[in-house]
Amino acid sequence: MNPTITAFQRSPDGGKGLARDTRVRWALEEVGQPYDVRLVSFEAMKQPAHLARHPFGQIPTYEDGSLVLFETGAIVLHIAERHPGLLPTDPDARARAIMWAIAALNTIEPTVLDLTAARIFEADRPWAKERLRLVEDRARVRLAQLTDYLGEKQWLDGDFSAGDLMMVSVLLRFRVTRLLDEFPTLAGYVARGEARPAYRRAFAAQLAINAPPSGEDRLG
Amino acid sequence: MNPTITAFQRSPDGGKGLARDTRVRWALEEVGQPYDVRLVSFEAMKQPAHLARHPFGQIPTYEDGSLVLFETGAIVLHIAERHPGLLPTDPDARARAIMWAIAALNTIEPTVLDLTAARIFEADRPWAKERLRLVEDRARVRLAQLTDYLGEKQWLDGDFSAGDLMMVSVLLRFRVTRLLDEFPTLAGYVARGEARPAYRRAFAAQLAINAPPSGEDRLG
Repeated sequence: MNPTITAFQRSPDGGKGLARDTRVRWALEEVGQPYDVRLVSFEAMKQPAHLARHPFGQIPTYEDGSLVLFETGAIVLHIAERHPGLLPTDPDARARAIMWAIAALNTIEPTVLDLTAARIFEADRPWAKERLRLVEDRARVRLAQLTDYLGEKQWLDGDFSAGDLMMVSVLLRFRVTRLLDEFPTLAGYVARGEARPAYRRAFAAQLAINAPPSGEDRLG
Repeated sequence: MNPTITAFQRSPDGGKGLARDTRVRWALEEVGQPYDVRLVSFEAMKQPAHLARHPFGQIPTYEDGSLVLFETGAIVLHIAERHPGLLPTDPDARARAIMWAIAALNTIEPTVLDLTAARIFEADRPWAKERLRLVEDRARVRLAQLTDYLGEKQWLDGDFSAGDLMMVSVLLRFRVTRLLDEFPTLAGYVARGEARPAYRRAFAAQLAINAPPSGEDRLG
């Protein structure tokens, strides 16, 4: 039996691949693990059947036999632990790969969430414009620090790992704000992630659900 | 050789135990691992020597032989993997404990960071009051969902784990906002965490650094 993940029946991003199921799809593609997908509507996400899997009423979830997981970071690390390909075998390097995955989730992603709040949820508030500038400046601090760390490196720490998968996925969320254009080192790093065949398969799989059948090729 | 962690020379919270080194101290106390502490000033945190350990210029860091880690969640999970006591041996239960630790960091903590921004960093902005109400309401949604999940349970999933350590540590940050008082189920859960001898030792250790020598007992 393949593991089953959940994904939006209709992603709010219309197929840009920014919904978090793309991260799990990417991890499964990297390790070559086939998977099944159950699509859930926004209504179903708030119903008891889904809340029993995900107490915060979101996607993705992951079911594999007796195991039911929510929280994308945990699902990706679980996949990385069960299959070769996403975590180094050297114990120190392995710990650092996990460190970078968690840094993406707890140090970088909160600034993206703050940007999303400023851009979308609070767009109609009187403070919208002024606060957006404030939040962008906070994001720039983190992106500059990450740039300094990354330097000329291909990936964060040696070979591509679950840490890169998560960091690229989080950084992708900055692209709509154009902030990524200010940091060519990071833009190049993200592009290397997107160029991986496993990412492209994951992207195409979510696009097939979210793009209108007659829509243009939004991968280009 | 004991592992060495870094902590604030002078914590901005004046010894309330909310700085992130307390989480690492707590984990080390739970597993009975002695540790050394190197205190860093705000100035030193931005210098190359510290940035080489922590690219985002924060505390804590963790050094053990050849391994240097930053990012509290990663340090706590590393300690939990290396010593018995913070992760169940059953593989499913272990994956769920890691899941809750990451849920604390990526689902709950961003709402705390947002609250801190609204309460502290943006306190002098014209939108401060109105936005604080908005941010509090967002936090209430998450705290209500967590309350529904926790119900009558002692801990999140069976025995106390790294997931509880992280969730209690994150929830503690809500206390200054009084939001925790609205959720007695969570307040009780946090109190159970704080009552653990390992937590009390961790708290006392950071207090000894941050409390003025003649100060009152802020534990009470």
